[in-house]
Amino acid sequence: MQSRLWIPLLLVLALPYTLAAEEGMWLFNNPPRKLLKENYKFDITDAWLTHLQRASVRLPHGSGSFVSADGLVMTNHHVASTAIQKLSTKEKDLLKLGFLANGLTEELKCVGEELFILMEIEDVTKTVKGAVKPGLSDEDAFAARQAIIATIQSDSEKKSGLHSEVVQLYQGNMYHLYRYKRYTDIRLVFAPEQQIAFFGGDADNFAYPRYDLDVTLFRVYEDGKPIKVEHFLKWNDAGVSDDELVFVSGHPGKTSRLQTLAELEYLRDKGYPYLLQRLNRWEVMGMVFAGQGQEADRRAKDFLFGVANSRKARLGGLAGLQDPAMMKKKTAAEKNLREAAAKNPELKDVGGAWDVISKVQKIRAKNISRHTLLEQGAAFNTSLFSYARTLVRAADEYAKPNEKRLEEFTDANKKRLELGLFSKRPIYEDFELAKLEDALGWMTEELGNNDPMVKKILAGKAPRQRAIELIQGTKLTDPELRKKLYEGGEEAIDASDDAMIQLAKLIDADARKVRTIIDTQVSEPSRQAYDKIAQAKFAVEGTDIYPDATFTLRLSYGSVKGYKEGKKDIPFETHMGGAFEKSAANDNKAPYDLPESWLKNKDKINLKKSFNFICTNDIIGGNSGSPVVNRKGEVVGLIFDGNIQSLVWDFVYTDDDARSVAVTTPAITEALRSIYGGGTLADELISGARK
Amino acid sequence: MQSRLWIPLLLVLALPYTLAAEEGMWLFNNPPRKLLKENYKFDITDAWLTHLQRASVRLPHGSGSFVSADGLVMTNHHVASTAIQKLSTKEKDLLKLGFLANGLTEELKCVGEELFILMEIEDVTKTVKGAVKPGLSDEDAFAARQAIIATIQSDSEKKSGLHSEVVQLYQGNMYHLYRYKRYTDIRLVFAPEQQIAFFGGDADNFAYPRYDLDVTLFRVYEDGKPIKVEHFLKWNDAGVSDDELVFVSGHPGKTSRLQTLAELEYLRDKGYPYLLQRLNRWEVMGMVFAGQGQEADRRAKDFLFGVANSRKARLGGLAGLQDPAMMKKKTAAEKNLREAAAKNPELKDVGGAWDVISKVQKIRAKNISRHTLLEQGAAFNTSLFSYARTLVRAADEYAKPNEKRLEEFTDANKKRLELGLFSKRPIYEDFELAKLEDALGWMTEELGNNDPMVKKILAGKAPRQRAIELIQGTKLTDPELRKKLYEGGEEAIDASDDAMIQLAKLIDADARKVRTIIDTQVSEPSRQAYDKIAQAKFAVEGTDIYPDATFTLRLSYGSVKGYKEGKKDIPFETHMGGAFEKSAANDNKAPYDLPESWLKNKDKINLKKSFNFICTNDIIGGNSGSPVVNRKGEVVGLIFDGNIQSLVWDFVYTDDDARSVAVTTPAITEALRSIYGGGTLADELISGARK
Repeated sequence: MQSRLWIPLLLVLALPYTLAAEEGMWLFNNPPRKLLKENYKFDITDAWLTHLQRASVRLPHGSGSFVSADGLVMTNHHVASTAIQKLSTKEKDLLKLGFLANGLTEELKCVGEELFILMEIEDVTKTVKGAVKPGLSDEDAFAARQAIIATIQSDSEKKSGLHSEVVQLYQGNMYHLYRYKRYTDIRLVFAPEQQIAFFGGDADNFAYPRYDLDVTLFRVYEDGKPIKVEHFLKWNDAGVSDDELVFVSGHPGKTSRLQTLAELEYLRDKGYPYLLQRLNRWEVMGMVFAGQGQEADRRAKDFLFGVANSRKARLGGLAGLQDPAMMKKKTAAEKNLREAAAKNPELKDVGGAWDVISKVQKIRAKNISRHTLLEQGAAFNTSLFSYARTLVRAADEYAKPNEKRLEEFTDANKKRLELGLFSKRPIYEDFELAKLEDALGWMTEELGNNDPMVKKILAGKAPRQRAIELIQGTKLTDPELRKKLYEGGEEAIDASDDAMIQLAKLIDADARKVRTIIDTQVSEPSRQAYDKIAQAKFAVEGTDIYPDATFTLRLSYGSVKGYKEGKKDIPFETHMGGAFEKSAANDNKAPYDLPESWLKNKDKINLKKSFNFICTNDIIGGNSGSPVVNRKGEVVGLIFDGNIQSLVWDFVYTDDDARSVAVTTPAITEALRSIYGGGTLADELISGARK
Repeated sequence: MQSRLWIPLLLVLALPYTLAAEEGMWLFNNPPRKLLKENYKFDITDAWLTHLQRASVRLPHGSGSFVSADGLVMTNHHVASTAIQKLSTKEKDLLKLGFLANGLTEELKCVGEELFILMEIEDVTKTVKGAVKPGLSDEDAFAARQAIIATIQSDSEKKSGLHSEVVQLYQGNMYHLYRYKRYTDIRLVFAPEQQIAFFGGDADNFAYPRYDLDVTLFRVYEDGKPIKVEHFLKWNDAGVSDDELVFVSGHPGKTSRLQTLAELEYLRDKGYPYLLQRLNRWEVMGMVFAGQGQEADRRAKDFLFGVANSRKARLGGLAGLQDPAMMKKKTAAEKNLREAAAKNPELKDVGGAWDVISKVQKIRAKNISRHTLLEQGAAFNTSLFSYARTLVRAADEYAKPNEKRLEEFTDANKKRLELGLFSKRPIYEDFELAKLEDALGWMTEELGNNDPMVKKILAGKAPRQRAIELIQGTKLTDPELRKKLYEGGEEAIDASDDAMIQLAKLIDADARKVRTIIDTQVSEPSRQAYDKIAQAKFAVEGTDIYPDATFTLRLSYGSVKGYKEGKKDIPFETHMGGAFEKSAANDNKAPYDLPESWLKNKDKINLKKSFNFICTNDIIGGNSGSPVVNRKGEVVGLIFDGNIQSLVWDFVYTDDDARSVAVTTPAITEALRSIYGGGTLADELISGARK
């Protein structure tokens, strides 16, 4: 199947680089004005852009947008599901039951949630590069870069009062400073049952046609009141029409389109298989845990959803990497660029950059296991360890000046760190134990029983026995204790006999060691090499190249458009009645079982309303919850998925049959009115304000 | 938890070796007469033994026993499930619905099933060892051993008309010739719904207390009529009582109790993790396939059951291997034996044997991947490839004299091979495609995209594309075509343009090459080394040592006995009412949902009837379906599982809290009468013959 996906993205003989028709995750400060003008006769104005930018929001697990002047935010159910699970109990499982607040007083305050609005972008490339003098060792270059970024961020925060992040673009060629307004009082207003939000389950994930009401509405509060927003998207209740030009504004997480062949080969041969092996293991472990009964199933649900989703996405990406047709094209493109660079006297020192990246992959492969296990904490796979690690390091790091600290402990990140650390979210010891036992077993398999670190961690016990000891020996489930230890600093940590704190201390030197290897022997040389390659690309192929995704705000444009699967026409939209048909064809059995609320209100629903639609907009994981807007900047849809064919967008864009998948706006108001008794909310969406 | 499992099996200072109380999978021609006499005042008579031996049967996936003079065979539902699935269709899923034949005419003939009764055992150690002259190279020794075994088997078949197998015992110290009567007309008589046969699902697999009716009844036919059997087990409808002495007669598949520390370390560090990685992957792939809907679920069910079962068993075994306490004891025991052997002048050349086994593990680790992928066919994971492989090799092998052929193509194995090859079992192309695509992807990850074999197999295509091509290009789903190719020999194979046949031909030389490495560089030297170690063991520890399991008939004895879990008493039996209680406690939700037949007949069932029970008998995978008999040789139960604590029995036996789990005989007759309308069948069981 994959073979049909590849269009000649880089024509072997034709330079410069030709963009596929509707390709691109464009920076808001460098939008594709010319392309839109030429191909669609559409003028992007600054006002249009600023409005869309500020109506867009970033959530911890995805994207969203303001859809009323009273701070109403629309995102996906699956972006909100972690927040919804935190509000659920054994007695009241909101993921299962759904939720609708009857008026402001019933809106439920989320636990440890936050939301960002991008206010300004500033190019700080010169400042960053200026601080990293040529000729520095990789260690010194890394430290200098880290220091200047910490300083820029901290200065910006002090000056603007806005959360400030320096974002590296083109893998190290440019640095932009993003300033965000940040909110932490986020309340749940509406969520349908997960059953219809994720209708079709794993089988239909990344598939099309779809019938999913993957929506959740939050409201943002400040000082106990809903915020007033100037920039919110006007609701278009007619939705989309075939072939219409639409835009997506959201936060694509990560793509690897500009990476060299050597790095793609690393991902194909090591990175993806290694991750998939762990995901398979976690999925089986999670399902075994969930299989114990309803409450266990509820506790593991959010974890399992995330794992299964990643597994399917990565498997699709790996299928792309294993396709010789794609790799052949990538090979040819790289060869062309290298040859063109070699002929250009100004680019003569670029040649070695590809070799650097190739060499770096070997160091990466050698260290991935210890880095994943010890530094990323996969050897433990429990938030109780993550808390312990944060507490142990906070005591060390906050004693240092801002510019010398590990990135996550810099001043700019302090509020976010504290939000997570002090969160009162429920922690289920039985599930943490299951994950920890499995993780310790996996660590033992990976590093071997005789590895000194394994011996230290297991302390002469079998993985399960040690896991029980650790879970029984920690009280970090208590947010008050975490706060006390955090505020107590080094002294409190030194005095603690908590088993997880002890474990985090025990391995910290080794974990930092492997982090340093990755930071200074992999990331830093890669960054410098990619900087050179980007310069060559700009010189050879022109500057109209968007950077790879970085979980920052991007604009993509495309068309509402069906496709062909073999000889079959796949239309651009589905209808609400299709959900009933699909369910009936499967005897209303899982994963095609409709919730009670749909079955009993079938007569009231306008079954001809459009439900989901597809478009060619260039998105990737992280874009979930992004608004789809029309030329007028009105919201017409809500991105929630891509089809199977789009999974190769990690590496290359094609619009042959790869599509983004969205919920239509009319389906949302129709469901609110006819199924959920949410007429007031539907009115707010349509009028743009509470009545 | 594992730490509680280990009793001091080998006291560090006390030699000779002391058996745990009720340990042992004893040979029928070397039963533990003395132990039973001394500890239980029980005299095993030859008549008692012969009766039990001939009433026991071996099935492709486990054990069973005759329970009426009219050829009725009792085994587990999970042993029969592959056969039941082959008889099922989309319209009539017998795994789900259950089945009861109303009289002989309704008994359903199984597809490609066979059944063996052990008639005679003969010690052929001298003949085998005599043919393998000292001083031969490993290659020549392997060939000589293979030749003599093929000859012994073939001669025996010609003389006796019985299926003959030479079995290697003590990893290479003894060779016994087993002669079996073989039947192939096996008919399904009764199977309950899988829901109650596997009540509690994966969550309760290897757990206790249990409430599973894991039983199926077959009837053996010859010449279109039920066979008459002299040796069948008399049905004891009272079941067992606490602390009663009971015996299990069945076919334990494989244990590793006599293996050296180096081999256990190999299993811990490589063998088990490698297998588990594949099982996790298969389980996820199978569940994703099954998640597409009811019919997909039915098609994948039997595969998934087997994978999940192996995963749980292996994970339990690995937990044992990762327990330092067990490994410490194994280390001490080996040290003692080596020291004792070193002091004995007659054993002076044994010392090197341990080193040989240690060296061999490195060769094994190096070749496991290619051996698993190419020779075992895991790179394809479809029976369509297995058929192709068999056909391609049959053409080669049958051209050679019997004693030069690969083991599975010797005359003695010909009938079994043909039974499988010509079987009319249903093959679902969609599921075969899903497995093949996954397997080709896994092969690519394992060997790397640039491996010449991978390139040859993928032929320039992506795994999915190649999988589609292979499935579309083969007609081996048709048993008639398989028969034609088989009978056509080399000429037919050479002329075939079937894609799977071509693939099997393409890789055959490489597959054979890695098989030869394992045969001659791993198996043969191991066999010779273990022969020496066994001699040392017999000399130092005495000859009352049972050999590791070999999927041949063994006798174990033990007691019906509860145990303590922490402070909680786990009683020796459960009752039928407990199934209703457990189900109610879980809202009758999966995996604790009772079938309709149980719910509607609840009033008729004697809820106080015993249902499942546990005993200390030493069993392992392969024993599923084994009868439990009392001193009188009457059947009182049906083995179907062990508890979690018993999963370390792969490596060491303990009866502290490890237990075998069985269905009681009274539960079977009660269910037949009160739930399934099988009164006639219950009468046959109790009277021992059809009325």
